[in-house]
Amino acid sequence: MSGKLTVVGLGPGSPEQMTPEALAAVADAGDFFGYFPYIDRLDLRPDQRRHASDNREELARARAAIEMAAKGGKVCVVSGGDPGVFAMAAAVCEAIDEGPAEWRDIDFSVVPGVTAMLAVAAKAGAPLGHDFCAISLSNNLKPWDLIEKRLIAAAEAGFVMAFYNPVSKARPHQLGDAFALLRRHLPGEVPVIFGRAAGRPDEAIRIVPLSQAESGMADMATCVIVGTAETKLIERDGRRPLVYSPRYFKGAGA
Amino acid sequence: MSGKLTVVGLGPGSPEQMTPEALAAVADAGDFFGYFPYIDRLDLRPDQRRHASDNREELARARAAIEMAAKGGKVCVVSGGDPGVFAMAAAVCEAIDEGPAEWRDIDFSVVPGVTAMLAVAAKAGAPLGHDFCAISLSNNLKPWDLIEKRLIAAAEAGFVMAFYNPVSKARPHQLGDAFALLRRHLPGEVPVIFGRAAGRPDEAIRIVPLSQAESGMADMATCVIVGTAETKLIERDGRRPLVYSPRYFKGAGA
Repeated sequence: MSGKLTVVGLGPGSPEQMTPEALAAVADAGDFFGYFPYIDRLDLRPDQRRHASDNREELARARAAIEMAAKGGKVCVVSGGDPGVFAMAAAVCEAIDEGPAEWRDIDFSVVPGVTAMLAVAAKAGAPLGHDFCAISLSNNLKPWDLIEKRLIAAAEAGFVMAFYNPVSKARPHQLGDAFALLRRHLPGEVPVIFGRAAGRPDEAIRIVPLSQAESGMADMATCVIVGTAETKLIERDGRRPLVYSPRYFKGAGA
Repeated sequence: MSGKLTVVGLGPGSPEQMTPEALAAVADAGDFFGYFPYIDRLDLRPDQRRHASDNREELARARAAIEMAAKGGKVCVVSGGDPGVFAMAAAVCEAIDEGPAEWRDIDFSVVPGVTAMLAVAAKAGAPLGHDFCAISLSNNLKPWDLIEKRLIAAAEAGFVMAFYNPVSKARPHQLGDAFALLRRHLPGEVPVIFGRAAGRPDEAIRIVPLSQAESGMADMATCVIVGTAETKLIERDGRRPLVYSPRYFKGAGA
Protein backbone atom coordinates (compact mmCIF):
# COMPACT_ATOMS: atom_id res chain seq x y z
CA MET A 1 0.00 0.00 0.00
CA SER A 2 1.51 3.22 -1.21
CA GLY A 3 1.32 6.48 0.73
CA LYS A 4 1.74 10.09 -0.14
CA LEU A 5 4.83 12.24 -0.68
CA THR A 6 4.66 16.03 -0.94
CA VAL A 7 7.62 18.32 -1.45
CA VAL A 8 6.68 21.67 0.06
CA GLY A 9 8.13 25.17 -0.35
CA LEU A 10 7.95 27.05 2.95
CA GLY A 11 8.78 30.41 1.35
CA PRO A 12 11.64 32.76 2.24
CA GLY A 13 11.14 32.59 6.01
CA SER A 14 8.31 34.82 7.20
CA PRO A 15 5.08 32.89 7.90
CA GLU A 16 3.35 35.75 6.03
CA GLN A 17 5.05 34.57 2.82
CA MET A 18 4.04 30.91 3.12
CA THR A 19 1.01 29.96 1.01
CA PRO A 20 -2.20 28.41 2.43
CA GLU A 21 -1.50 25.43 0.12
CA ALA A 22 1.86 24.83 1.84
CA LEU A 23 0.27 25.21 5.28
CA ALA A 24 -2.41 22.65 4.36
CA ALA A 25 0.21 20.19 3.06
CA VAL A 26 2.08 20.44 6.36
CA ALA A 27 -1.13 19.90 8.35
CA ASP A 28 -1.90 16.79 6.28
CA ALA A 29 1.43 14.97 6.75
CA GLY A 30 2.78 12.84 9.58
CA ASP A 31 6.51 12.76 8.89
CA PHE A 32 8.76 15.66 7.89
CA PHE A 33 12.15 15.41 6.22
CA GLY A 34 14.42 18.39 5.56
CA TYR A 35 17.44 20.47 6.40
CA PHE A 36 17.56 21.44 10.13
CA PRO A 37 16.62 25.17 9.84
CA TYR A 38 13.60 24.41 7.63
CA ILE A 39 12.37 21.64 9.92
CA ASP A 40 12.85 24.04 12.86
CA ARG A 41 10.43 26.50 11.25
CA LEU A 42 7.53 24.03 11.34
CA ASP A 43 4.86 24.43 14.00
CA LEU A 44 3.91 20.75 14.37
CA ARG A 45 1.38 18.79 16.44
CA PRO A 46 2.54 16.15 18.96
CA ASP A 47 1.56 13.38 16.49
CA GLN A 48 3.83 14.74 13.73
CA ARG A 49 7.46 13.62 13.53
CA ARG A 50 10.62 15.52 12.54
CA HIS A 51 13.50 13.90 10.60
CA ALA A 52 16.05 16.70 10.21
CA SER A 53 19.36 16.21 8.41
CA ASP A 54 22.38 18.13 7.20
CA ASN A 55 22.37 20.18 4.00
CA ARG A 56 24.70 17.90 2.08
CA GLU A 57 22.48 14.85 2.57
CA GLU A 58 19.83 15.64 -0.07
CA LEU A 59 19.79 12.30 -1.90
CA ALA A 60 19.87 10.16 1.26
CA ARG A 61 17.09 12.34 2.72
CA ALA A 62 15.03 11.95 -0.46
CA ARG A 63 15.41 8.16 -0.39
CA ALA A 64 14.44 7.91 3.29
CA ALA A 65 11.33 10.02 2.67
CA ILE A 66 10.30 7.99 -0.40
CA GLU A 67 10.81 4.69 1.45
CA MET A 68 8.50 5.84 4.21
CA ALA A 69 5.86 6.96 1.70
CA ALA A 70 6.19 3.66 -0.19
CA LYS A 71 5.29 1.89 3.05
CA GLY A 72 2.08 3.93 3.34
CA GLY A 73 3.25 7.02 5.23
CA LYS A 74 2.03 10.55 4.69
CA VAL A 75 5.37 12.24 4.19
CA CYS A 76 6.41 15.83 3.64
CA VAL A 77 9.84 16.94 2.39
CA VAL A 78 10.35 20.63 3.14
CA SER A 79 12.50 23.25 1.43
CA GLY A 80 12.90 26.96 2.08
CA GLY A 81 11.63 29.20 -0.71
CA ASP A 82 10.45 27.10 -3.65
CA PRO A 83 11.34 23.38 -3.63
CA GLY A 84 11.92 23.32 -7.40
CA VAL A 85 14.73 25.91 -7.41
CA PHE A 86 18.03 24.31 -6.33
CA ALA A 87 16.17 22.37 -3.66
CA MET A 88 14.54 19.08 -2.79
CA ALA A 89 12.10 18.53 -5.69
CA ALA A 90 14.91 17.58 -8.10
CA ALA A 91 16.61 15.37 -5.50
CA VAL A 92 13.36 13.46 -4.92
CA CYS A 93 12.84 13.04 -8.69
CA GLU A 94 16.42 11.76 -9.05
CA ALA A 95 15.83 9.21 -6.30
CA ILE A 96 12.51 8.06 -7.83
CA ASP A 97 14.19 7.76 -11.25
CA GLU A 98 16.98 5.58 -9.87
CA GLY A 99 14.88 3.64 -7.36
CA PRO A 100 12.64 0.54 -7.59
CA ALA A 101 9.73 0.67 -10.04
CA GLU A 102 7.10 0.76 -7.27
CA TRP A 103 8.36 4.18 -6.18
CA ARG A 104 6.75 5.58 -9.36
CA ASP A 105 3.32 4.62 -8.01
CA ILE A 106 3.58 6.91 -4.98
CA ASP A 107 1.14 9.81 -4.88
CA PHE A 108 3.81 12.49 -5.42
CA SER A 109 3.27 16.24 -5.62
CA VAL A 110 5.19 19.48 -5.33
CA VAL A 111 3.83 22.63 -3.64
CA PRO A 112 5.52 25.77 -4.98
CA GLY A 113 6.64 28.71 -2.87
CA VAL A 114 8.11 32.20 -3.10
CA THR A 115 11.75 31.56 -3.99
CA ALA A 116 14.55 33.67 -2.48
CA MET A 117 15.33 35.75 -5.58
CA LEU A 118 11.72 36.96 -5.77
CA ALA A 119 11.68 37.99 -2.09
CA VAL A 120 15.01 39.80 -2.40
CA ALA A 121 14.01 41.45 -5.69
CA ALA A 122 10.79 42.74 -4.11
CA LYS A 123 12.77 44.42 -1.32
CA ALA A 124 15.07 46.12 -3.84
CA GLY A 125 12.45 47.29 -6.38
CA ALA A 126 12.27 45.30 -9.62
CA PRO A 127 15.78 44.11 -10.54
CA LEU A 128 14.34 40.98 -12.25
CA GLY A 129 12.00 43.07 -14.41
CA HIS A 130 13.76 42.04 -17.61
CA ASP A 131 15.02 38.64 -18.84
CA PHE A 132 16.98 36.94 -16.06
CA CYS A 133 18.60 33.68 -15.00
CA ALA A 134 19.22 31.77 -11.79
CA ILE A 135 22.58 30.06 -11.28
CA SER A 136 23.77 27.94 -8.37
CA LEU A 137 27.41 28.79 -7.64
CA SER A 138 27.94 25.45 -5.92
CA ASN A 139 30.42 23.28 -7.77
CA ASN A 140 29.66 20.18 -5.72
CA LEU A 141 27.59 18.73 -8.56
CA LYS A 142 28.85 20.52 -11.67
CA PRO A 143 32.32 21.66 -12.77
CA TRP A 144 33.41 25.23 -12.09
CA ASP A 145 34.32 25.82 -15.74
CA LEU A 146 30.68 25.19 -16.67
CA ILE A 147 29.60 27.83 -14.13
CA GLU A 148 32.10 30.28 -15.63
CA LYS A 149 30.77 29.52 -19.11
CA ARG A 150 27.22 30.29 -17.93
CA LEU A 151 28.24 33.51 -16.17
CA ILE A 152 29.89 34.77 -19.36
CA ALA A 153 26.96 33.68 -21.55
CA ALA A 154 24.47 35.42 -19.25
CA ALA A 155 26.52 38.62 -19.07
CA GLU A 156 27.10 38.79 -22.82
CA ALA A 157 23.44 38.09 -23.63
CA GLY A 158 22.13 40.68 -21.15
CA PHE A 159 20.46 38.48 -18.55
CA VAL A 160 20.10 39.75 -14.98
CA MET A 161 21.55 36.99 -12.74
CA ALA A 162 20.46 35.61 -9.38
CA PHE A 163 23.03 33.50 -7.55
CA TYR A 164 21.96 30.75 -5.19
CA ASN A 165 24.45 28.96 -2.88
CA PRO A 166 26.93 31.84 -3.30
CA VAL A 167 29.34 30.77 -0.55
CA SER A 168 29.87 28.08 2.06
CA LYS A 169 32.63 26.93 4.40
CA ALA A 170 33.66 24.36 1.80
CA ARG A 171 33.47 26.87 -1.07
CA PRO A 172 34.82 30.21 0.19
CA HIS A 173 36.19 31.60 -3.08
CA GLN A 174 33.53 30.95 -5.77
CA LEU A 175 31.58 34.19 -5.36
CA GLY A 176 34.71 36.34 -5.45
CA ASP A 177 35.86 34.50 -8.57
CA ALA A 178 32.44 35.08 -10.17
CA PHE A 179 32.58 38.84 -9.45
CA ALA A 180 36.13 39.05 -10.86
CA LEU A 181 35.00 37.26 -14.03
CA LEU A 182 31.90 39.43 -14.43
CA ARG A 183 33.94 42.63 -14.04
CA ARG A 184 35.63 41.66 -17.31
CA HIS A 185 32.25 41.40 -19.09
CA LEU A 186 30.02 44.05 -17.45
CA PRO A 187 30.45 47.75 -16.55
CA GLY A 188 31.71 48.40 -13.00
CA GLU A 189 28.61 50.44 -12.11
CA VAL A 190 26.17 47.53 -12.62
CA PRO A 191 24.17 47.23 -9.36
CA VAL A 192 24.68 44.12 -7.22
CA ILE A 193 22.13 43.29 -4.50
CA PHE A 194 22.99 41.13 -1.49
CA GLY A 195 19.76 39.97 0.14
CA ARG A 196 19.50 37.95 3.32
CA ALA A 197 16.46 36.96 5.37
CA ALA A 198 14.12 39.06 3.19
CA GLY A 199 10.86 39.68 5.05
CA ARG A 200 12.23 38.43 8.39
CA PRO A 201 13.18 40.54 11.44
CA ASP A 202 16.91 40.10 10.69
CA GLU A 203 16.51 41.17 7.04
CA ALA A 204 19.64 42.67 5.44
CA ILE A 205 19.62 44.17 1.95
CA ARG A 206 22.75 45.83 0.57
CA ILE A 207 23.30 47.39 -2.84
CA VAL A 208 26.79 48.07 -4.22
CA PRO A 209 28.26 48.58 -7.70
CA LEU A 210 29.86 45.49 -9.26
CA SER A 211 33.24 47.22 -8.98
CA GLN A 212 32.94 47.07 -5.16
CA ALA A 213 31.16 43.71 -4.76
CA GLU A 214 33.04 41.26 -2.53
CA SER A 215 32.36 37.70 -1.46
CA GLY A 216 32.54 38.72 2.22
CA MET A 217 29.23 40.57 1.73
CA ALA A 218 27.40 37.21 1.43
CA ASP A 219 26.96 34.07 3.47
CA MET A 220 25.29 30.78 2.56
CA ALA A 221 21.81 32.21 3.22
CA THR A 222 22.30 35.22 0.93
CA CYS A 223 20.78 35.54 -2.52
CA VAL A 224 22.90 37.74 -4.79
CA ILE A 225 21.37 39.56 -7.78
CA VAL A 226 23.65 41.08 -10.43
CA GLY A 227 22.05 43.56 -12.84
CA THR A 228 22.89 44.33 -16.45
CA ALA A 229 24.13 47.50 -18.14
CA GLU A 230 20.43 48.44 -18.46
CA THR A 231 19.63 48.10 -14.73
CA LYS A 232 18.97 51.45 -13.06
CA LEU A 233 19.06 53.02 -9.59
CA ILE A 234 16.47 55.49 -8.29
CA GLU A 235 18.07 57.51 -5.49
CA ARG A 236 15.78 58.48 -2.60
CA ASP A 237 16.31 60.83 0.35
CA GLY A 238 17.02 58.94 3.57
CA ARG A 239 16.14 55.55 2.13
CA ARG A 240 17.80 52.77 0.17
CA PRO A 241 17.68 53.40 -3.59
CA LEU A 242 15.27 51.41 -5.72
CA VAL A 243 16.89 49.08 -8.25
CA TYR A 244 15.01 48.08 -11.40
CA SER A 245 15.65 46.51 -14.77
CA PRO A 246 13.43 48.27 -17.34
CA ARG A 247 11.03 46.16 -19.35
CA TYR A 248 12.29 47.85 -22.54
CA PHE A 249 15.73 47.44 -24.05
CA LYS A 250 17.45 50.62 -25.22
CA GLY A 251 20.93 49.22 -25.78
CA ALA A 252 24.36 50.72 -25.09
CA GLY A 253 24.50 54.47 -25.56
CA ALA A 254 20.73 54.90 -26.04
CA MET B 1 0.76 64.52 2.01
CA SER B 2 2.06 61.35 0.48
CA GLY B 3 0.18 58.04 0.62
CA LYS B 4 1.13 54.45 0.12
CA LEU B 5 1.70 52.39 -3.00
CA THR B 6 2.04 48.61 -2.90
CA VAL B 7 2.60 46.36 -5.91
CA VAL B 8 1.17 42.97 -5.03
CA GLY B 9 1.63 39.52 -6.54
CA LEU B 10 -1.62 37.56 -6.40
CA GLY B 11 0.05 34.26 -7.30
CA PRO B 12 -0.79 31.94 -10.20
CA GLY B 13 -4.57 32.03 -9.69
CA SER B 14 -5.71 29.70 -6.91
CA PRO B 15 -6.45 31.56 -3.65
CA GLU B 16 -4.52 28.71 -1.99
CA GLN B 17 -1.33 29.98 -3.65
CA MET B 18 -1.71 33.62 -2.56
CA THR B 19 0.38 34.56 0.48
CA PRO B 20 -1.06 36.02 3.71
CA GLU B 21 1.17 39.05 3.08
CA ALA B 22 -0.56 39.69 -0.27
CA LEU B 23 -3.97 39.20 1.30
CA ALA B 24 -3.12 41.73 4.05
CA ALA B 25 -1.87 44.26 1.47
CA VAL B 26 -5.17 43.99 -0.40
CA ALA B 27 -7.17 44.42 2.83
CA ASP B 28 -5.16 47.55 3.65
CA ALA B 29 -5.67 49.43 0.36
CA GLY B 30 -8.54 51.53 -0.94
CA ASP B 31 -7.86 51.70 -4.67
CA PHE B 32 -6.80 48.87 -7.00
CA PHE B 33 -5.13 49.21 -10.37
CA GLY B 34 -4.42 46.31 -12.70
CA TYR B 35 -5.22 44.26 -15.77
CA PHE B 36 -8.91 43.21 -15.89
CA PRO B 37 -8.57 39.48 -15.03
CA TYR B 38 -6.35 40.21 -12.00
CA ILE B 39 -8.71 42.92 -10.71
CA ASP B 40 -11.60 40.47 -11.23
CA ARG B 41 -9.93 37.99 -8.88
CA LEU B 42 -10.08 40.39 -5.92
CA ASP B 43 -12.72 39.89 -3.26
CA LEU B 44 -13.18 43.54 -2.23
CA ARG B 45 -15.29 45.40 0.32
CA PRO B 46 -17.86 48.02 -0.77
CA ASP B 47 -15.46 50.82 0.27
CA GLN B 48 -12.67 49.56 -2.02
CA ARG B 49 -12.49 50.77 -5.65
CA ARG B 50 -11.46 48.94 -8.84
CA HIS B 51 -9.55 50.66 -11.69
CA ALA B 52 -9.11 47.93 -14.28
CA SER B 53 -7.31 48.53 -17.58
CA ASP B 54 -6.07 46.68 -20.64
CA ASN B 55 -2.83 44.70 -20.68
CA ARG B 56 -0.95 47.05 -22.96
CA GLU B 57 -1.49 50.06 -20.68
CA GLU B 58 1.16 49.27 -18.05
CA LEU B 59 2.92 52.63 -17.95
CA ALA B 60 -0.29 54.72 -17.99
CA ARG B 61 -1.71 52.45 -15.25
CA ALA B 62 1.48 52.85 -13.18
CA ARG B 63 1.33 56.65 -13.49
CA ALA B 64 -2.35 56.81 -12.51
CA ALA B 65 -1.68 54.65 -9.44
CA ILE B 66 1.33 56.72 -8.38
CA GLU B 67 -0.58 60.00 -8.82
CA MET B 68 -3.32 58.75 -6.54
CA ALA B 69 -0.78 57.61 -3.92
CA ALA B 70 1.04 60.96 -4.19
CA LYS B 71 -2.23 62.67 -3.23
CA GLY B 72 -2.47 60.55 -0.08
CA GLY B 73 -4.30 57.46 -1.32
CA LYS B 74 -3.69 53.90 -0.16
CA VAL B 75 -3.16 52.30 -3.53
CA CYS B 76 -2.54 48.74 -4.65
CA VAL B 77 -1.27 47.72 -8.09
CA VAL B 78 -1.94 44.03 -8.68
CA SER B 79 -0.17 41.47 -10.89
CA GLY B 80 -0.76 37.78 -11.35
CA GLY B 81 2.08 35.56 -10.12
CA ASP B 82 4.98 37.69 -8.92
CA PRO B 83 4.87 41.43 -9.72
CA GLY B 84 8.65 41.57 -10.30
CA VAL B 85 8.70 39.05 -13.17
CA PHE B 86 7.61 40.69 -16.44
CA ALA B 87 4.90 42.53 -14.54
CA MET B 88 3.95 45.79 -12.84
CA ALA B 89 6.85 46.35 -10.38
CA ALA B 90 9.24 47.38 -13.17
CA ALA B 91 6.58 49.57 -14.85
CA VAL B 92 5.97 51.40 -11.55
CA CYS B 93 9.72 51.88 -11.02
CA GLU B 94 10.07 53.25 -14.57
CA ALA B 95 7.26 55.73 -13.93
CA ILE B 96 8.77 56.85 -10.60
CA ASP B 97 12.18 57.24 -12.25
CA GLU B 98 10.78 59.46 -15.02
CA GLY B 99 8.21 61.30 -12.88
CA PRO B 100 8.39 64.35 -10.58
CA ALA B 101 10.85 64.23 -7.67
CA GLU B 102 8.09 64.03 -5.04
CA TRP B 103 7.06 60.61 -6.36
CA ARG B 104 10.26 59.24 -4.78
CA ASP B 105 8.88 60.11 -1.34
CA ILE B 106 5.91 57.77 -1.65
CA ASP B 107 5.85 54.81 0.74
CA PHE B 108 6.46 52.20 -1.97
CA SER B 109 6.73 48.45 -1.52
CA VAL B 110 6.51 45.24 -3.51
CA VAL B 111 4.88 42.04 -2.21
CA PRO B 112 6.29 38.95 -3.95
CA GLY B 113 4.24 35.98 -5.13
CA VAL B 114 4.54 32.53 -6.67
CA THR B 115 5.40 33.27 -10.30
CA ALA B 116 3.93 31.18 -13.14
CA MET B 117 7.06 29.17 -13.96
CA LEU B 118 7.29 27.90 -10.36
CA ALA B 119 3.63 26.80 -10.35
CA VAL B 120 3.97 25.05 -13.72
CA ALA B 121 7.30 23.45 -12.76
CA ALA B 122 5.75 22.08 -9.55
CA LYS B 123 2.98 20.38 -11.57
CA ALA B 124 5.55 18.78 -13.91
CA GLY B 125 8.09 17.60 -11.31
CA ALA B 126 11.31 19.64 -11.09
CA PRO B 127 12.19 20.93 -14.57
CA LEU B 128 13.84 24.07 -13.07
CA GLY B 129 16.04 21.95 -10.78
CA HIS B 130 19.24 23.09 -12.52
CA ASP B 131 20.38 26.55 -13.72
CA PHE B 132 17.58 28.23 -15.64
CA CYS B 133 16.44 31.49 -17.20
CA ALA B 134 13.19 33.36 -17.78
CA ILE B 135 12.65 35.11 -21.10
CA SER B 136 9.69 37.21 -22.26
CA LEU B 137 8.99 36.41 -25.91
CA SER B 138 7.18 39.73 -26.36
CA ASN B 139 9.00 41.97 -28.80
CA ASN B 140 6.88 45.01 -27.96
CA LEU B 141 9.69 46.48 -25.87
CA LYS B 142 12.84 44.78 -27.19
CA PRO B 143 13.96 43.73 -30.68
CA TRP B 144 13.35 40.16 -31.84
CA ASP B 145 17.01 39.67 -32.77
CA LEU B 146 17.92 40.25 -29.10
CA ILE B 147 15.44 37.55 -28.08
CA GLU B 148 16.99 35.17 -30.63
CA LYS B 149 20.46 35.96 -29.28
CA ARG B 150 19.28 35.11 -25.75
CA LEU B 151 17.60 31.87 -26.84
CA ILE B 152 20.80 30.71 -28.51
CA ALA B 153 22.98 31.80 -25.57
CA ALA B 154 20.72 29.96 -23.11
CA ALA B 155 20.60 26.79 -25.23
CA GLU B 156 24.35 26.71 -25.81
CA ALA B 157 25.16 27.35 -22.12
CA GLY B 158 22.73 24.69 -20.87
CA PHE B 159 20.07 26.81 -19.15
CA VAL B 160 16.54 25.46 -18.82
CA MET B 161 14.26 28.21 -20.21
CA ALA B 162 10.87 29.48 -19.09
CA PHE B 163 9.00 31.61 -21.62
CA TYR B 164 6.57 34.31 -20.49
CA ASN B 165 4.22 36.09 -22.94
CA PRO B 166 4.70 33.28 -25.48
CA VAL B 167 1.94 34.33 -27.87
CA SER B 168 -0.75 36.98 -28.32
CA LYS B 169 -3.12 38.11 -31.05
CA ALA B 170 -0.58 40.78 -32.03
CA ARG B 171 2.34 38.32 -31.90
CA PRO B 172 1.15 34.98 -33.32
CA HIS B 173 4.45 33.67 -34.73
CA GLN B 174 7.13 34.33 -32.05
CA LEU B 175 6.79 31.05 -30.17
CA GLY B 176 6.93 28.96 -33.36
CA ASP B 177 10.00 30.88 -34.46
CA ALA B 178 11.62 30.27 -31.06
CA PHE B 179 10.98 26.51 -31.28
CA ALA B 180 12.39 26.40 -34.83
CA LEU B 181 15.51 28.21 -33.68
CA LEU B 182 15.96 26.00 -30.62
CA ARG B 183 15.64 22.82 -32.73
CA ARG B 184 18.90 23.89 -34.40
CA HIS B 185 20.65 24.13 -31.01
CA LEU B 186 19.08 21.40 -28.84
CA PRO B 187 18.26 17.70 -29.34
CA GLY B 188 14.71 17.02 -30.59
CA GLU B 189 13.88 14.88 -27.55
CA VAL B 190 14.32 17.74 -25.05
CA PRO B 191 11.06 17.95 -23.03
CA VAL B 192 8.87 21.02 -23.48
CA ILE B 193 6.13 21.76 -20.92
CA PHE B 194 3.08 23.86 -21.72
CA GLY B 195 1.44 24.92 -18.47
CA ARG B 196 -1.78 26.87 -18.17
CA ALA B 197 -3.84 27.78 -15.10
CA ALA B 198 -1.63 25.67 -12.81
CA GLY B 199 -3.47 24.94 -9.56
CA ARG B 200 -6.83 26.15 -10.90
CA PRO B 201 -9.84 24.00 -11.90
CA ASP B 202 -9.11 24.53 -15.62
CA GLU B 203 -5.46 23.52 -15.24
CA ALA B 204 -3.82 22.12 -18.39
CA ILE B 205 -0.30 20.69 -18.42
CA ARG B 206 1.10 19.12 -21.58
CA ILE B 207 4.54 17.63 -22.17
CA VAL B 208 5.95 17.05 -25.67
CA PRO B 209 9.42 16.64 -27.16
CA LEU B 210 10.91 19.80 -28.70
CA SER B 211 10.66 18.14 -32.13
CA GLN B 212 6.85 18.20 -31.79
CA ALA B 213 6.38 21.51 -29.96
CA GLU B 214 4.11 23.96 -31.78
CA SER B 215 2.97 27.49 -31.03
CA GLY B 216 -0.68 26.41 -31.21
CA MET B 217 -0.16 24.48 -27.96
CA ALA B 218 0.08 27.82 -26.06
CA ASP B 219 -2.03 30.91 -25.54
CA MET B 220 -1.16 34.17 -23.81
CA ALA B 221 -1.80 32.67 -20.36
CA THR B 222 0.54 29.71 -20.92
CA CYS B 223 4.01 29.43 -19.40
CA VAL B 224 6.32 27.31 -21.57
CA ILE B 225 9.34 25.53 -20.08
CA VAL B 226 12.02 24.11 -22.39
CA GLY B 227 14.47 21.64 -20.84
CA THR B 228 18.10 20.96 -21.70
CA ALA B 229 19.85 17.86 -22.99
CA GLU B 230 20.19 16.84 -19.31
CA THR B 231 16.46 17.10 -18.51
CA LYS B 232 14.86 13.69 -17.91
CA LEU B 233 11.43 12.06 -18.04
CA ILE B 234 10.18 9.51 -15.51
CA GLU B 235 7.41 7.47 -17.14
CA ARG B 236 4.54 6.40 -14.85
CA ASP B 237 1.62 4.01 -15.43
CA GLY B 238 -1.63 5.85 -16.11
CA ARG B 239 -0.25 9.24 -15.15
CA ARG B 240 1.65 12.10 -16.76
CA PRO B 241 5.42 11.53 -16.67
CA LEU B 242 7.52 13.52 -14.21
CA VAL B 243 10.01 15.93 -15.80
CA TYR B 244 13.13 16.96 -13.91
CA SER B 245 16.48 18.61 -14.50
CA PRO B 246 19.07 16.84 -12.32
CA ARG B 247 21.05 18.95 -9.88
CA TYR B 248 24.27 17.37 -11.17
CA PHE B 249 25.77 17.87 -14.62
CA LYS B 250 27.00 14.74 -16.41
CA GLY B 251 27.52 16.22 -19.86
CA ALA B 252 26.84 14.80 -23.31
CA GLY B 253 27.32 11.04 -23.54
CA ALA B 254 27.77 10.53 -19.79
